[in-house]
Amino acid sequence: MPHSAGRLGKAAVVPIALALLASTADAARQAPPAVPTVDAARLERHIERLSVFGRPPGGSFADGVTRIAYSDADVAGRKYVMDLMREAGLDPRIDAAGNIIGRRQGRDPALGPILFGSHVDSVPGGGNFDGPLGTLAALEVMQALAEAGVTTRHPLEMVVWANEEGVAYGSGLDGSRAAAGQLHEGDMEQVWNGLSRRDAVRKIGGDPGRIAEARRAPGSIHAYLELHIEQGGVLDSAGAAIGVVEGIVGIDRFEATVRGVANHAGTTPMPDRHDALVAAARLVVAVNEVVRAEPGRHVGTVGQLTVSPNAPNVVSGLVKLTIELRDLSAAKIARLERAIEARAAAIARETRTEITIAPVSHHDAAMASPAVADAIGRAAAALNLRWLRLASGAGHDAQMMARLGPMGMIFVPSLGGVSHSPREATRWEDCARGAAVLLQAVLATDQMTVR
Amino acid sequence: MPHSAGRLGKAAVVPIALALLASTADAARQAPPAVPTVDAARLERHIERLSVFGRPPGGSFADGVTRIAYSDADVAGRKYVMDLMREAGLDPRIDAAGNIIGRRQGRDPALGPILFGSHVDSVPGGGNFDGPLGTLAALEVMQALAEAGVTTRHPLEMVVWANEEGVAYGSGLDGSRAAAGQLHEGDMEQVWNGLSRRDAVRKIGGDPGRIAEARRAPGSIHAYLELHIEQGGVLDSAGAAIGVVEGIVGIDRFEATVRGVANHAGTTPMPDRHDALVAAARLVVAVNEVVRAEPGRHVGTVGQLTVSPNAPNVVSGLVKLTIELRDLSAAKIARLERAIEARAAAIARETRTEITIAPVSHHDAAMASPAVADAIGRAAAALNLRWLRLASGAGHDAQMMARLGPMGMIFVPSLGGVSHSPREATRWEDCARGAAVLLQAVLATDQMTVR
Repeated sequence: MPHSAGRLGKAAVVPIALALLASTADAARQAPPAVPTVDAARLERHIERLSVFGRPPGGSFADGVTRIAYSDADVAGRKYVMDLMREAGLDPRIDAAGNIIGRRQGRDPALGPILFGSHVDSVPGGGNFDGPLGTLAALEVMQALAEAGVTTRHPLEMVVWANEEGVAYGSGLDGSRAAAGQLHEGDMEQVWNGLSRRDAVRKIGGDPGRIAEARRAPGSIHAYLELHIEQGGVLDSAGAAIGVVEGIVGIDRFEATVRGVANHAGTTPMPDRHDALVAAARLVVAVNEVVRAEPGRHVGTVGQLTVSPNAPNVVSGLVKLTIELRDLSAAKIARLERAIEARAAAIARETRTEITIAPVSHHDAAMASPAVADAIGRAAAALNLRWLRLASGAGHDAQMMARLGPMGMIFVPSLGGVSHSPREATRWEDCARGAAVLLQAVLATDQMTVR
Repeated sequence: MPHSAGRLGKAAVVPIALALLASTADAARQAPPAVPTVDAARLERHIERLSVFGRPPGGSFADGVTRIAYSDADVAGRKYVMDLMREAGLDPRIDAAGNIIGRRQGRDPALGPILFGSHVDSVPGGGNFDGPLGTLAALEVMQALAEAGVTTRHPLEMVVWANEEGVAYGSGLDGSRAAAGQLHEGDMEQVWNGLSRRDAVRKIGGDPGRIAEARRAPGSIHAYLELHIEQGGVLDSAGAAIGVVEGIVGIDRFEATVRGVANHAGTTPMPDRHDALVAAARLVVAVNEVVRAEPGRHVGTVGQLTVSPNAPNVVSGLVKLTIELRDLSAAKIARLERAIEARAAAIARETRTEITIAPVSHHDAAMASPAVADAIGRAAAALNLRWLRLASGAGHDAQMMARLGPMGMIFVPSLGGVSHSPREATRWEDCARGAAVLLQAVLATDQMTVR
């Protein structure tokens, strides 16, 4: 997918955005603008330079990145960002959970900080925008404010959250969970790929024995803001530049176990079979039908399915599959789940198999602060950008921060909706627009008494 | 499952069978009967003693056997059988493919031999009847004829085929394929579990460099007979003691590849998905529906299905699955396949995926000789046993032998249709009945001019 080299396309459509984006850092240094302005070219350069840490050998930017949390590539990428933070006049510290925090003092020392940031770890074979954009746009905000000589009322904290993706240790959002008091010292005993979580946290500069010190009290932050790529195709399809996130969907995950009788595929007559795979296939179809039958933006997915014994000449005896339901409304998820249960019971009867559906995990939806969302929408409108409201179907550190204070998220389009893939791409001008909205939203939030 | 200790149950039902079965070997030796008679207790003892080779450590007969071809357990089991053959007055030789052959001369040296036998190798976690019954019943036939002092017109050859199951090297029927000229020296280069086929054949006493010498010319054998457990539930359900095999079904195996687009399960709206697993599930259901819609004894199975990337939170991008169709009629298999292709095309359209179905392997059906089948039916009737005609849904060495001369198979009931499992079981009295029918069928075939 094409990336224009740092220039803003469609200039006629976004005159105000253009006015607010200096074309080079030099220009910004030589003549500080009256209003703080993000530097599109610098942001692009930082994203490109971060992309070398975890790049496949011999690859290019387009080949994406494998920068799994706690890996050497993750450590190197974090060091690169900390060096940039120092250049920008921040004095980054690493908290006990391994989160990188760069603080800029505000005018009123009695006020809680405005936090903003994202992460730099990736999935295996991931892209260069999921995490890095929000992280380096946060840096851009800090740099723009410094260059403009602006001091906010609230202290500002740029955060790079540790292990957002959760490839290591399985759960994800580790740094923000620690900040929300949801990651404990007992969790440090976990081992993944031969590395204990204790050693992993230590490797990135954290202090696993003091993990509780990473915790922040509810109400202690003024607000949390995060810029992120959408990771879906809603904005790209609609031709909108900015998504104002209404909330992060709740996720209910179930495991269905289908028990039949494994038997010889040549000698077992069709009427005598208890074929677990035929039953499981009907269940997969039923989940899809139930989810699509109800209008709305909810989604339901069977993404994992394993067959036993899984041989061409054996009628399947056992199939396990995952069912995942996501929506902002817990009531809707529960309604879908009941409908799936009813379909499963009928399928089990008709196929003479046994189907059990057990809950595996539940994550509450996290609603954005309407006041912060409105501030983001106004910032986008002021920049003359097309924006729309949407839900985040993916999980983000912002959902943990919503437990501590008012949360808002800004989405920019993912081309073709692709994410968690080397083909993940966001136009450079959309990256710059997102950073500009983040900057304006931080300034607007600084003026607000958000609830 | 209960095994009566060598006694024949339901005596009232099978008076003639009782008359033809001596209750102990001693009785047979002390007073040779006028007609050759299999020894039920000896057959049971031999099956029980063979079962220790490959038995799980600390297990019992009921725990089944793992006696994979070319393993040490297989070598030990083969040695046990060869020792029994020597005790029975046979002078076993091992041909170039590793088949064990024990020949008993006939009265007319110009005639081709009647072959009969089975195999002693098993699948992992297999049972004690699939193979051993036919092997040790063949020995019983040889022993009964020797004890009765009967010499047949045709030479008789008891055969223990090498690697029938094909767990090693994947294809199966190795010994009989070599005899049919379908296994070649070039195949000896194959490696499985670190062992070349060359070394494997050598390990069981074969001569891989002379594999062509194991070949027998079409027309060179008078007939081939094999007693085997049914491995299905038809006889057990019908309450019949003997199955007269009409033929061994043809097997067509296909691999279907379903290509969708892997994407984030949280951020990809339902209408935008190209979900390979939903399409594959509909295909599994369609195969089942197509196969069940047509009356007959044919079977169709999706036994293997793999999902990629197979994660709970990712819409599937790729699914591969096997489709296996079996019937005596190639025309019916082709008709079913066309119907499945048509359903797949519709599913691909409706799910916006791409489905290709490629043939993987084709095995012709092997028809039994009607004359030999009639002889088996008459032998069962003469022993007053309930018998019925059926097709073999499983492959057997007999299908290779059908290329060389008239073939016949005798089935005995598998309790509950279970096979390839430690729970595989056939009543001892049914084992003895099968052996008695084999003996009578050998004698009847000896009198026939079979085509």
